[in-house]
Amino acid sequence: MLNFALFGAGRIGKMHAQNLQAFVHSNLKYVYDVHAPAAQEVAKATGAKVAESVDDALADPEVDAVLIATSTDTHVELIIKAAKAGKAILCEKPIDLNTATVNACMEEIKDCDVPIQIGFNRRFDPSHSTAAKAAHDGSVGKLEQVIISSRDPGMAPVEYLKSSGGIFRDMIIHDFDMARFILAEEVVEIQAFGSALVDEKITEIGDVDSVMINMRSQSGRLIHINGSRRASYGYDQRVEVFGSEGMVISDNQTPTSVVRYNTDTTGVKDPLFNFFTDRYGAAYNLQLTAFIENVLAKRPVSPSFEDGRRAQILADAAQRSFDTGEKVKLTW
Amino acid sequence: MLNFALFGAGRIGKMHAQNLQAFVHSNLKYVYDVHAPAAQEVAKATGAKVAESVDDALADPEVDAVLIATSTDTHVELIIKAAKAGKAILCEKPIDLNTATVNACMEEIKDCDVPIQIGFNRRFDPSHSTAAKAAHDGSVGKLEQVIISSRDPGMAPVEYLKSSGGIFRDMIIHDFDMARFILAEEVVEIQAFGSALVDEKITEIGDVDSVMINMRSQSGRLIHINGSRRASYGYDQRVEVFGSEGMVISDNQTPTSVVRYNTDTTGVKDPLFNFFTDRYGAAYNLQLTAFIENVLAKRPVSPSFEDGRRAQILADAAQRSFDTGEKVKLTW
Amino acid sequence: MLNFALFGAGRIGKMHAQNLQAFVHSNLKYVYDVHAPAAQEVAKATGAKVAESVDDALADPEVDAVLIATSTDTHVELIIKAAKAGKAILCEKPIDLNTATVNACMEEIKDCDVPIQIGFNRRFDPSHSTAAKAAHDGSVGKLEQVIISSRDPGMAPVEYLKSSGGIFRDMIIHDFDMARFILAEEVVEIQAFGSALVDEKITEIGDVDSVMINMRSQSGRLIHINGSRRASYGYDQRVEVFGSEGMVISDNQTPTSVVRYNTDTTGVKDPLFNFFTDRYGAAYNLQLTAFIENVLAKRPVSPSFEDGRRAQILADAAQRSFDTGEKVKLTW
Amino acid sequence: MLNFALFGAGRIGKMHAQNLQAFVHSNLKYVYDVHAPAAQEVAKATGAKVAESVDDALADPEVDAVLIATSTDTHVELIIKAAKAGKAILCEKPIDLNTATVNACMEEIKDCDVPIQIGFNRRFDPSHSTAAKAAHDGSVGKLEQVIISSRDPGMAPVEYLKSSGGIFRDMIIHDFDMARFILAEEVVEIQAFGSALVDEKITEIGDVDSVMINMRSQSGRLIHINGSRRASYGYDQRVEVFGSEGMVISDNQTPTSVVRYNTDTTGVKDPLFNFFTDRYGAAYNLQLTAFIENVLAKRPVSPSFEDGRRAQILADAAQRSFDTGEKVKLTW
Repeated sequence: MLNFALFGAGRIGKMHAQNLQAFVHSNLKYVYDVHAPAAQEVAKATGAKVAESVDDALADPEVDAVLIATSTDTHVELIIKAAKAGKAILCEKPIDLNTATVNACMEEIKDCDVPIQIGFNRRFDPSHSTAAKAAHDGSVGKLEQVIISSRDPGMAPVEYLKSSGGIFRDMIIHDFDMARFILAEEVVEIQAFGSALVDEKITEIGDVDSVMINMRSQSGRLIHINGSRRASYGYDQRVEVFGSEGMVISDNQTPTSVVRYNTDTTGVKDPLFNFFTDRYGAAYNLQLTAFIENVLAKRPVSPSFEDGRRAQILADAAQRSFDTGEKVKLTW
Repeated sequence: MLNFALFGAGRIGKMHAQNLQAFVHSNLKYVYDVHAPAAQEVAKATGAKVAESVDDALADPEVDAVLIATSTDTHVELIIKAAKAGKAILCEKPIDLNTATVNACMEEIKDCDVPIQIGFNRRFDPSHSTAAKAAHDGSVGKLEQVIISSRDPGMAPVEYLKSSGGIFRDMIIHDFDMARFILAEEVVEIQAFGSALVDEKITEIGDVDSVMINMRSQSGRLIHINGSRRASYGYDQRVEVFGSEGMVISDNQTPTSVVRYNTDTTGVKDPLFNFFTDRYGAAYNLQLTAFIENVLAKRPVSPSFEDGRRAQILADAAQRSFDTGEKVKLTW
Repeated sequence: MLNFALFGAGRIGKMHAQNLQAFVHSNLKYVYDVHAPAAQEVAKATGAKVAESVDDALADPEVDAVLIATSTDTHVELIIKAAKAGKAILCEKPIDLNTATVNACMEEIKDCDVPIQIGFNRRFDPSHSTAAKAAHDGSVGKLEQVIISSRDPGMAPVEYLKSSGGIFRDMIIHDFDMARFILAEEVVEIQAFGSALVDEKITEIGDVDSVMINMRSQSGRLIHINGSRRASYGYDQRVEVFGSEGMVISDNQTPTSVVRYNTDTTGVKDPLFNFFTDRYGAAYNLQLTAFIENVLAKRPVSPSFEDGRRAQILADAAQRSFDTGEKVKLTW
Repeated sequence: MLNFALFGAGRIGKMHAQNLQAFVHSNLKYVYDVHAPAAQEVAKATGAKVAESVDDALADPEVDAVLIATSTDTHVELIIKAAKAGKAILCEKPIDLNTATVNACMEEIKDCDVPIQIGFNRRFDPSHSTAAKAAHDGSVGKLEQVIISSRDPGMAPVEYLKSSGGIFRDMIIHDFDMARFILAEEVVEIQAFGSALVDEKITEIGDVDSVMINMRSQSGRLIHINGSRRASYGYDQRVEVFGSEGMVISDNQTPTSVVRYNTDTTGVKDPLFNFFTDRYGAAYNLQLTAFIENVLAKRPVSPSFEDGRRAQILADAAQRSFDTGEKVKLTW
């Protein structure tokens, strides 16, 4: 049994709380949020206690693990505190918007021997992970190309996106991690194209809303990521793995298996899932299960802090390529 | 909050226990099983108490509802006891293999004003219920034809099927209920064909393993059900609703959205779900939610005891048609 | 090279003429139609001569084969004439609406040793024939169930259907032949249900527009056919072959492989082909190719006159079952 | 009626000859090939005459149009001759591997007022053209992204590819034209990545076999093309059009609509078409029809010589980007 303290009781925090309570091998002991009513709501629904402070929760020796679901700018501070308190850590992505801060954090906790897992939930999606497995086990022969489509159902207001770190670090970071997960090697060249096609105002904050990125890996494999802040038909999430002996596509999903035949159209299905908690519900669940099982069994957790750091290096490189208009080379 | 006593802690009982524990508005207070260790296991996993006896559990005034998941031959006795104790009842299908017994039960409890819902879980499957809705709301125009495919992934040993009541009452009863659910009117003619194609030994117990049934409803609609005790590729569960302005198919489902392209084949998907707890997991969940919400809100529950009884009358008629080789007419 | 005389220059006749002209190994020498301008139009487009009469065309020793695409009531007379003239015959289905007339024809030509192929074009559809092959070659294991869906895109006026011979003989006869083709054995029991759901006026001519038929074969296999005179979404033509080791479905087809994702719907495809000349264009082509190749190579042609006769016996039995409400048994 | 001279009687020439003969409004009068037996074979099958020489055929005033299906290095010479002879021209792509030669040709024939259509057959594919239409008519809202997947079923020997002009000019030129067709505006930035993943020997001739190209159009739209010389599962040809209100995919195609359900897999379809004459058979047919109809009606033909030239400019730019590793900007 793993006793948890949950930091952050917003939308994602609540979902994690529910999973922690439903699992047999986890127990949500504390919840903390800077906004007290949010913490109280989660506490009431799950039977957890509201922690007075982060430090209080970390001081309890019965707490084995922390789940960090606070705002991005607090991640590093909480990771350092929890690591120094010897707790296992599951932290939402990204570690921080600034890679220098991530590196400093790494340095700071380098002697803390605690498991740290970063919340790249999509690695645990049963469909994406099956596609990745096909790349790893030779089902598609020798891996040659990877294509990732990543379109959000709707764009947040530009005002809100100001502090997002930009589309590459905020949104596409998931896809950089997916590329690394599938490739099982590093990217050495990256070129990013971007445009403001959804909302021109995005240019006022120096960002774009539509991107296409090409990458080349150490062994010469080619990777494409395309992203948009808005897909009118829902949350468009596809992964294509192409190799010498075949192709595996992790395709989009609809809530039901209903197919309609009307006068003017046939094969009509429901709209795609419209939000990540629906589309990736199973993935969030499996992510938490893996963390709990691995920590309990003292096995390494994955994706690791280093995986989180490397995805950010790719996001930085994409940003730099977009800013300069030039291809960026990476050495590892 | 609805306090439950669960009778029966076998495979389905366990699944119900898990759902009862996970819901916010239900509480599993007691579990009972003639096989005590099964009850103890569920009690341990959920925090429920093991009831000394059915009567003990029913005697507790805090118990609002019972969930009956015992063997079929005990359903009627438990329904009568629970109804007389004033408890709301959710009972697994079928009520009883013998319609005379069902009728006697109905008579016995006719003055008990308690909600009774029969466990035709498939009505709650999001895909099947969407197809049914299309028949009811005019999405397909005027309803004309219904086709139900119902094939189990594997056949139980003939020895075990001896006491099943026969394929029509044991297996196809779900499809008779689905037909009634979609039609929203009664069937007046039925003709059943059957063969022993999966396992010839089934004929030794006077049963068949493969069936095709045609039916005609009060307003002349045509309904086809085909069933098999074994589909090598998994649990084949499809519903087709055809009307003057279109068709809606509730198609089969696979665990992932992965599609493979190999040298010799393309479009390859996973095998179908292989078992009803996987394929109809959401349906079992929604069935229980509907029961809890309706009982708490003092709204009628559905499908009702009478729905259970009428599905059995159809199963009886199909059996009689098969036995005599003749079309059977029904009046209601 | 096979020289043809084409009898009948209506819609189907024209299509055949086009194919005959395009093939390398066939030559359309004569065309005849009681309506002379129709024959002239075909002659002009293909370079064929307009025959003065059927007899004139048959008298030409250079004519090797005749293609009969006239109205049904003239088929038997033309078959007899052509057979006695020693010509190979490809005749559109059905041979005649009256099985007694078919039998008399059979008797009349029993000493004429000419190849006679009946135009059950669907046997040559690449998708349906692949499904049939899967039943024959064991791809689905031991064949157990066959399900045929047969819905026309639109219903002809009731007035026109008066002389059609009824839905079983006019429309479903294709499906009876498909069932026999897939089964590779005979049907021994048949029960037909029917309703007037598309147009009530159909009852005035003693017919129905919606049918469901169940059948049982010699070895106990179960077969279902459902038919409708009208599917709002196009020409609905599906065949399902189910066996001990799998299932093969010959699914519907759309003109393009375009899939649309809109705000409210996903997976949207074109409407189905709306007419038999589009849906079965390849089948008509392959049917003619097979006839030409087999006649030139002096191999037997198929489906044969006897296949045509047996499909009609099934249609007659279905009609009798519908008329009497009783199951009809067949011996062969 | 349009009288044709066909230059080139190889694989594609034969296919064109067959179409020319089958159409009502075209007549194949001459065929010429440097390899006389090839011309004789086509002549025999179609009734055309074998021309003594190109000039002889062009000298016949009855010849209205020429179809150039010879080897690429002869295209420009034949275009110039035919243009000067006043014939309408349908020329296979590419015009020439060298854009300077194309420009010189343009200059040379600038006063010849003859229709010239370049054989970008994919514009006429019913599925791709429907996707393009959705980009043009606003079905997907404002166009934002285009993704083209272009993988050949198998790679020719490296020796043969030596004179191909490289993957961008030889193979991907079709996709550059498709991008221009869909965009209906010009590309202004292009970055090409490439690798030798199929056959390392390709590097010996300074070429690659796997490419990923990103482009940006005048109005900021983003375009991705990925290509491979070999897809084990057949000819992979997909086009995705993404806009503010939806997405349209022109998906891959299989020869039948058969779907298989086996013990380990479901949804199994045939392999994709394995060759361009199968996959794009309808497109070749429609391309020729459009040419004939437009020439007869004295309407402009499309895609034009200038379209052919511009696709080549894109191919050149992609090659340059690959060679230098830098993004290439284009002005028009």
